[in-house]
Amino acid sequence: MKRTNRRDALRLGAVLGSGLAARGEEPRSLGTPLSAYGERSPFVKPVRTMRQTKTPEAGSSATPLADTYGIITPSSLHYERHHAGVPNIDPARHRLVIHGMVERPLILTMDDIRRLPSVSRIHFLECGGNSGGEWQAKNQPDVQRSYGLASCSEWTGVPLRLLLEEAGVKAGAKWLIAEGADACKMQRSVPLAPELDYALLAYGQNGEPLRPSQGFPLRLLTPGWEGNVQVKWLQRLLVTDQPHMTRDETSKYSDLMPDGKARIFSLPLEAKSVVTFPSGGQTLPGPGLYEVTGLAWTGKGLVTRVELTFDGGASWVEARMDEPRFPRAFVRFRMPWRWDGKPVVMASRATDETGYVQPTREQLVAARGMNSGYHFNGIKLWRVGADGVVTNVEGA
Amino acid sequence: MKRTNRRDALRLGAVLGSGLAARGEEPRSLGTPLSAYGERSPFVKPVRTMRQTKTPEAGSSATPLADTYGIITPSSLHYERHHAGVPNIDPARHRLVIHGMVERPLILTMDDIRRLPSVSRIHFLECGGNSGGEWQAKNQPDVQRSYGLASCSEWTGVPLRLLLEEAGVKAGAKWLIAEGADACKMQRSVPLAPELDYALLAYGQNGEPLRPSQGFPLRLLTPGWEGNVQVKWLQRLLVTDQPHMTRDETSKYSDLMPDGKARIFSLPLEAKSVVTFPSGGQTLPGPGLYEVTGLAWTGKGLVTRVELTFDGGASWVEARMDEPRFPRAFVRFRMPWRWDGKPVVMASRATDETGYVQPTREQLVAARGMNSGYHFNGIKLWRVGADGVVTNVEGA
Repeated sequence: MKRTNRRDALRLGAVLGSGLAARGEEPRSLGTPLSAYGERSPFVKPVRTMRQTKTPEAGSSATPLADTYGIITPSSLHYERHHAGVPNIDPARHRLVIHGMVERPLILTMDDIRRLPSVSRIHFLECGGNSGGEWQAKNQPDVQRSYGLASCSEWTGVPLRLLLEEAGVKAGAKWLIAEGADACKMQRSVPLAPELDYALLAYGQNGEPLRPSQGFPLRLLTPGWEGNVQVKWLQRLLVTDQPHMTRDETSKYSDLMPDGKARIFSLPLEAKSVVTFPSGGQTLPGPGLYEVTGLAWTGKGLVTRVELTFDGGASWVEARMDEPRFPRAFVRFRMPWRWDGKPVVMASRATDETGYVQPTREQLVAARGMNSGYHFNGIKLWRVGADGVVTNVEGA
Repeated sequence: MKRTNRRDALRLGAVLGSGLAARGEEPRSLGTPLSAYGERSPFVKPVRTMRQTKTPEAGSSATPLADTYGIITPSSLHYERHHAGVPNIDPARHRLVIHGMVERPLILTMDDIRRLPSVSRIHFLECGGNSGGEWQAKNQPDVQRSYGLASCSEWTGVPLRLLLEEAGVKAGAKWLIAEGADACKMQRSVPLAPELDYALLAYGQNGEPLRPSQGFPLRLLTPGWEGNVQVKWLQRLLVTDQPHMTRDETSKYSDLMPDGKARIFSLPLEAKSVVTFPSGGQTLPGPGLYEVTGLAWTGKGLVTRVELTFDGGASWVEARMDEPRFPRAFVRFRMPWRWDGKPVVMASRATDETGYVQPTREQLVAARGMNSGYHFNGIKLWRVGADGVVTNVEGA
């Protein structure tokens, strides 16, 4: 075994030994038997929090980011954002139509689709409205409610390009109109951009069929773009030469600038990160060794660096990232940290492979004003008080 | 868009168009609302199959491999192998003791452990008895029952080396005795081998705490070694200079050779693969294009190649593997395949980074005889009949 100085570095004695109390109870009888479908321990409680709306069919529920490990989000805890509830679709009756400016219109069953060449890749999904409260500094008290409309899964599906080539896209075509099979027939205009090389018609999520909340039996997956464009319960792709300017790409999911113009079709999500431990609502039991950890992601390829500040942004140190990293996926970052018990203002800052550095909230507001509730990717500060209580930093 | 010959290669027209029947019913009302904890679609049915034993607390349940996508196994469908049932452990009362030949014995709470530097990695787990029926050619009819004691997850935990260094392993120590908190106090002797550099004290699985069936709140994870040694509900690591020759490493999980000697502590699992589509119990609806797919893995690093045969092993062609691949993890392989409707005998064959090539059953039997029910990694043949019915090839 290679000797290292780790012990000196960690000085674990400072945190260990609290277990010297009596051992747990010993089991005296057989445990529960085998089961056909496993469940969580009854001691594990985190659930999605729901934003209150007039109708629970049109709203969002947030992943408990502070209670997740690694980069895979458990499918039962993947964030939701629905506009007309979750349809209960019989996959045997579901169809995908590809038509419009194509040589050969296609109607495909799910059996057809599952026979085609496919691929599995790990990608994040994020709602364009995630952490939107930060624009107004009307911040939620914890990372779940402020940043929880982002999740990450292993997705399986057929490359979109393969079916577009099969259909034969005609010259002059520049957009797809993607339509869902929910009651509102969610429609989004999708540019035929180079990023569609990564796009999938996804039917698998974390090793099983898509969950209904994520579009069972089929969704459009355009990795790195805002979640709403990745239409769930996908039933139609209309190939056109212009966008349809639908409700959810004009009045919603667009950014009204200070000059009265709007940024629209701002689909690729920019580099972003957030510390999940310590984060709002948690309490450190006392000084000593902790692992600071959190998540970083970018819609523009790979996260290349994550830095942490413990002095409100005056100085930054580089965090370790779990390897391997994947393009357009969550990256888990970590750093051992010995808290001395004094108040600290901490945050993370991500850099992506284009060289883009996650900005401060002030920089974002200077560039875009405060009219928008979408596409916020500013640096998120948490304050650790002398009492160990972690709180949101308002209006930073 | 780059033009390719894909359409010519796929000739999708042959498989498409079956969807020209009536479209699915249109939703006329709002779907189901947001939920705190998601569930599968009621149309998704696969569950673990249980091997019948006298007591359902001591047995195994198998992952439905033919119904999984990608490389992540849904935690609810991760295989089980228990010897005394699943204990219901309160993590607040659980302790890990590290003692024996160490300078500084440790008793750790789960809170202590979660404060330490940690890492997340994707690794398979496989029971040493998986596909054991193949030795006797008493083969199960489908891939779930014959190969389903293998699964793959993203695991999160503290590197074992870190705590061994903190405890200070004394000169002369060569083994760990790992003990579980189940009713049988499962014990296995773990050699202090270089492979422990990859070992974790794991508390996370697929983004959430370990499932009870996989050892909540803490298990030993020694990636690439047989499942039984990766002790679940871990409560004790005794550092010693010799193995304890426990029940499950002598009478079980060892291989009796033809000469009467036994292979024991044969912990690293060798390169293995299996085609999951088409596989036993499935029926191809007719000639045409399909995607042949399956899983490969090795306990000795990376799978470097997977080949497929469609003529019972006379010739082999290389399959595509999803990238990136991870050491000691499932690899998903795929190949488009146009079935002409004639009978076929097909199989996969994996090669790992050491150059080791997955052997035939005949080669394994020639080397080890037929006394063992453990550590079978031979090539698995499936027959596709002219009627499209896929069956197990007995005694191949």
